[in-house]
Amino acid sequence: MARRVELIGLEGFPLVKPGDDLGRLIVEVARANGVKIEDGDVVVVSQKVVSKAEGRIVDLRSVRVSREAELLAAMSGKDPALAQVILDEAEEVVKVGRGRIIVRTRQGVVCANAGVDRSNVAGRPDVVSLLPENPDESAARIRERVRELTGRDVAVVITDTYGRPLRRGQVNFAIGLSGLRPFRDYRGTLDLFGYRLRVKRIAVADEVASAAELVMGSGAEGVPVAIIKGLKSELGEGSARELNMPEERWLFR
Amino acid sequence: MARRVELIGLEGFPLVKPGDDLGRLIVEVARANGVKIEDGDVVVVSQKVVSKAEGRIVDLRSVRVSREAELLAAMSGKDPALAQVILDEAEEVVKVGRGRIIVRTRQGVVCANAGVDRSNVAGRPDVVSLLPENPDESAARIRERVRELTGRDVAVVITDTYGRPLRRGQVNFAIGLSGLRPFRDYRGTLDLFGYRLRVKRIAVADEVASAAELVMGSGAEGVPVAIIKGLKSELGEGSARELNMPEERWLFR
Repeated sequence: MARRVELIGLEGFPLVKPGDDLGRLIVEVARANGVKIEDGDVVVVSQKVVSKAEGRIVDLRSVRVSREAELLAAMSGKDPALAQVILDEAEEVVKVGRGRIIVRTRQGVVCANAGVDRSNVAGRPDVVSLLPENPDESAARIRERVRELTGRDVAVVITDTYGRPLRRGQVNFAIGLSGLRPFRDYRGTLDLFGYRLRVKRIAVADEVASAAELVMGSGAEGVPVAIIKGLKSELGEGSARELNMPEERWLFR
Repeated sequence: MARRVELIGLEGFPLVKPGDDLGRLIVEVARANGVKIEDGDVVVVSQKVVSKAEGRIVDLRSVRVSREAELLAAMSGKDPALAQVILDEAEEVVKVGRGRIIVRTRQGVVCANAGVDRSNVAGRPDVVSLLPENPDESAARIRERVRELTGRDVAVVITDTYGRPLRRGQVNFAIGLSGLRPFRDYRGTLDLFGYRLRVKRIAVADEVASAAELVMGSGAEGVPVAIIKGLKSELGEGSARELNMPEERWLFR
């Protein structure tokens, strides 16, 4: 009678290296955790392990720094090589302050440092990870690989953790999708009393990302993959790019 | 071995009227759903039923409209009486556009229309609901009432659904808390390789709100309460006000 959704964080995930078969690792770790992968499960994967598997890591000692990156480094107080990598990942620099470079990435997400990150990457402090080149495609590849290995059709969501302009603290967001609709649409539907709703579209994929974080965790906890059961009504197709607010509709600038 | 969190949406919640004992309704509906309330459960309650139980509803026909509200109505295209109610609920008007009034509410939340809402309120289209006067206190009262009736110590989160400046679609946010910490703090902790983390503080209470929405839903679905099991490590004390970004730290204005 009650609606139930289960969030399961997979323990014991191995360290991921460039070239690793992430779909296979997910299937193997799920099995080791005693978790059965079923049709309609949503597999949530932290961006960090996707980036590592795809070799999206850069050694800052190998970066040639441009004049523009030197300027950005001076303005932000960041390392010039890191500023160069952020610039290379940015479609547009949105805001620069002390210790802070906010950009719109080539993937369309507005976030600090273009998602470029030193944490949980081997080779510190000189090696950083970049966002996956095309996170929707990364999600589709993992989904296809899980289907090959298990015969099950799952949805895959790739997530990363960012701050928010008007709220303190960071939350997990969906940056890549396959098999899950980004939104649940209420437009044109009526409420309990037949009135048009204030809520128009729920960003379900971002809520799924936030929910999964509750069993994933950052830091040394090392839980980069969660399985969510009970979300069949949200399955469908779409791109995480749809979640990015188009720049002409930014309220604050 | 795997970490598990369960989200349970309670079906069959009755329509709530001013003066209703929300704690008792939650306990009764949980029992009718076959859901056992246990120590450490997180009870997530939609703002709308809290506002109704607390009598936070206004008939627009009884509102006296000031010159300021007339101006705001003309700028936004909204009903003058509704503009007056929004002004009364606002600490500060942040941004006005066609069909849109963004304010910082007396509760400290930046949102459209001060959270004033026509949907799911009897007496449409003239009756609107306001946010609870003090949502942390509302959460504490529900928590205390559940403890009286069941002997169990639960956490309570009161939520509402808002848009976000840089993302499309709305998600559920925590606007009132009792017994749950707003943040999980990683500051000073190290990652898998001993490096300082980019992720500093996770806004767990907002993630809990988003997670609960996956089993709640808006519209005529009528699921205003969810129970979450498995979050014991996030329990503690704090206020939802801590989640509001202080205005001097707004990046965009």
